[in-house]
Amino acid sequence: MDLDLAKELAVTNDSKIVLYVIDGLGGLPHPDTGRSELESADTPHLDRLAADGICGLTVPVGPGITPGSGPGHLSLFGYDPYRYQVGRGVLEALGIDFDLQPQDVAARGNFCTVDEAGRVTDRRAGRISTDTCTELCDLLREIKLPGVELFVEPVREHRFLLVLRADGLDGRLSETDPQRLDVEPLPVQALAPEAASTASYVNQFIQEAKRILAGHEPANMLLLRGFSKHPSFPCFGDVFRMRAAAVAVYPMYRGLAKLVGMTVLPTGITLEDELETLRAHWEEFDFFFLHFKRADAAGEDGDFDAKIAALEAADAVIPALREMEPDVLMVAGDHSTPSVLAAHSWHPVPFALCSRWCRPDRTEEFYESVCAAGSLGTFPATEVMPLAMAHARRLTKYGA
Amino acid sequence: MDLDLAKELAVTNDSKIVLYVIDGLGGLPHPDTGRSELESADTPHLDRLAADGICGLTVPVGPGITPGSGPGHLSLFGYDPYRYQVGRGVLEALGIDFDLQPQDVAARGNFCTVDEAGRVTDRRAGRISTDTCTELCDLLREIKLPGVELFVEPVREHRFLLVLRADGLDGRLSETDPQRLDVEPLPVQALAPEAASTASYVNQFIQEAKRILAGHEPANMLLLRGFSKHPSFPCFGDVFRMRAAAVAVYPMYRGLAKLVGMTVLPTGITLEDELETLRAHWEEFDFFFLHFKRADAAGEDGDFDAKIAALEAADAVIPALREMEPDVLMVAGDHSTPSVLAAHSWHPVPFALCSRWCRPDRTEEFYESVCAAGSLGTFPATEVMPLAMAHARRLTKYGA
Repeated sequence: MDLDLAKELAVTNDSKIVLYVIDGLGGLPHPDTGRSELESADTPHLDRLAADGICGLTVPVGPGITPGSGPGHLSLFGYDPYRYQVGRGVLEALGIDFDLQPQDVAARGNFCTVDEAGRVTDRRAGRISTDTCTELCDLLREIKLPGVELFVEPVREHRFLLVLRADGLDGRLSETDPQRLDVEPLPVQALAPEAASTASYVNQFIQEAKRILAGHEPANMLLLRGFSKHPSFPCFGDVFRMRAAAVAVYPMYRGLAKLVGMTVLPTGITLEDELETLRAHWEEFDFFFLHFKRADAAGEDGDFDAKIAALEAADAVIPALREMEPDVLMVAGDHSTPSVLAAHSWHPVPFALCSRWCRPDRTEEFYESVCAAGSLGTFPATEVMPLAMAHARRLTKYGA
Repeated sequence: MDLDLAKELAVTNDSKIVLYVIDGLGGLPHPDTGRSELESADTPHLDRLAADGICGLTVPVGPGITPGSGPGHLSLFGYDPYRYQVGRGVLEALGIDFDLQPQDVAARGNFCTVDEAGRVTDRRAGRISTDTCTELCDLLREIKLPGVELFVEPVREHRFLLVLRADGLDGRLSETDPQRLDVEPLPVQALAPEAASTASYVNQFIQEAKRILAGHEPANMLLLRGFSKHPSFPCFGDVFRMRAAAVAVYPMYRGLAKLVGMTVLPTGITLEDELETLRAHWEEFDFFFLHFKRADAAGEDGDFDAKIAALEAADAVIPALREMEPDVLMVAGDHSTPSVLAAHSWHPVPFALCSRWCRPDRTEEFYESVCAAGSLGTFPATEVMPLAMAHARRLTKYGA
């Protein structure tokens, strides 16, 4: 559903909607057992939820497309991930809780290794430690350019964030990462006439950085990608006419929620802390986005058993969620992260929606192949919000 | 399928297609039995049709979207309900068989109650009787404005139709219903410069009406919504290259069929009358839209048993339809109307298509959860017509 139409049809009432996102929820079978992580895990409460509600598989972006966390979440929030794009630089800023301003241009930086001729020999500088990254960022902070304020923030290993702050900056810039070895980093070029001065600032920064990093092998140069400004998205609360809150531990997800105008609640680091936060604010909001990270982290590590354990932990809080009696409780994932791939993947993601207005289907368990046979079928994740709104009786009739 | 493509691929032959629309067909389980109206009803002929043909669930407009009758039918006719919109005023006119002209602007009117300060205290004037509505409309007919002809027609309870007739009128007007209580009705504003004179006419009408209605509590004021002109849609018969006839009892559905250029056949008020009409004109047309209203009416009344009875009545005419040996016989609904909601809903709608060219699926019965497992799956209602055309061998190959 188009956000304009959602805004036109949305009505308010007293209902509560919970979107519980188990990051990286979907998986693939273990080669020995033929069963996925979710199928192998003991998840009685998710199974019960599936039996009581309706199931399907969400397609986060499109068939065959592996989403990053940004599009994976935005589509669950109802935002067309092709139309509402978030630059890598901005995502990196969100991920470290950097307070990005509307006039800022952010870029994702990589420390890299170059040879004597200046040609890239390792695009990740041997994945230096985060401590080393922090020290190098401190050095780069010495760079001063007249007319622009610079921020250099360590992220993790070889990755850092560069932010330029001044009025009139423009993010339409080419990237410096040549994406292959044995060639020199590319100079930044303005992709629009308005971005010429920003390109010049960045190229000056790179020249200074090259001088400072010389001799700091393996991190003796840097690459910059994903120049972008903070996008201006329609406010989730305005579109769906709900007071919306986000309960998430990791900055990236808090940042994504902030991007669409949700209220981000301060919370502790365990899932139980998150539940407690949700409970404490139950009366203040209509919609809750609850994020659980561990399943994705285990999948990315390729640790099948750890992912099973994470899914079982995710399952354990379902009774507490149901006790709060949301009118609509959904369990979703932003994408699949099969342990056997040790990465995000394109596979559709298990989804369950429970409400008194569900037309029940025959799903009695909650895992990939069962969800595929659920009454929601395999459907775009952008339809999750319209379905939630409908089951909360928050959408009025279309046409007379 | 886009209508332009349909027109490009459509070919003519001797086949007959029947689209039997059981209004409000889909439902939800009864809380005591866990079975929907259709599942509870004894519908042997629909079951047999499902067994002989292919089944699925149609999505009238989009996931989560509850359609009105207009978009619900237009999508079954193959018209994208987002692109082909019918204003509320026009639908109200269609619903009472008002002979709307191309230059007319129509609006849906509500009698309402205002307090001494002119603030709305009841947007429906306590749902006055249709007789009272008729008397009040007679009073409003006394209003004369130079340069424009006015029509005020009672509809039902507090609802009436206002039509302005003159050359150069424009329906791009704001509504007067403030959609909440304790505020005054809004003045009509032109939403385009060309609509300024129309806005002025309507505001003059409202001033006169206010004076006339004063003292007629509870109906001492009116609200106007959905200003619109008769839309100009592609002709169904031209697009699909068929002589198309509509057999429907209620004006609204006859009006919708007329909107897309079908021939509307005069008919009696029972389903048997409608069957007889269809039979009498069998040789004259290629396509028949047959409409049965009672199931929706029972659902809207929240009367589970009455809806069961209506569905059983709908079932009883299937043998007579099959005896006419249509090449394609379809049973569809424009939307679901679950008795437990006593309203239209967003739930996908059972659908069956029977033709000698069906690839059989395993569906042996006709109700919601069985149709969900049918070979057509859950699919947009706009695909019903292309499927019908294909099974009637009325679509040529796309591309060489």
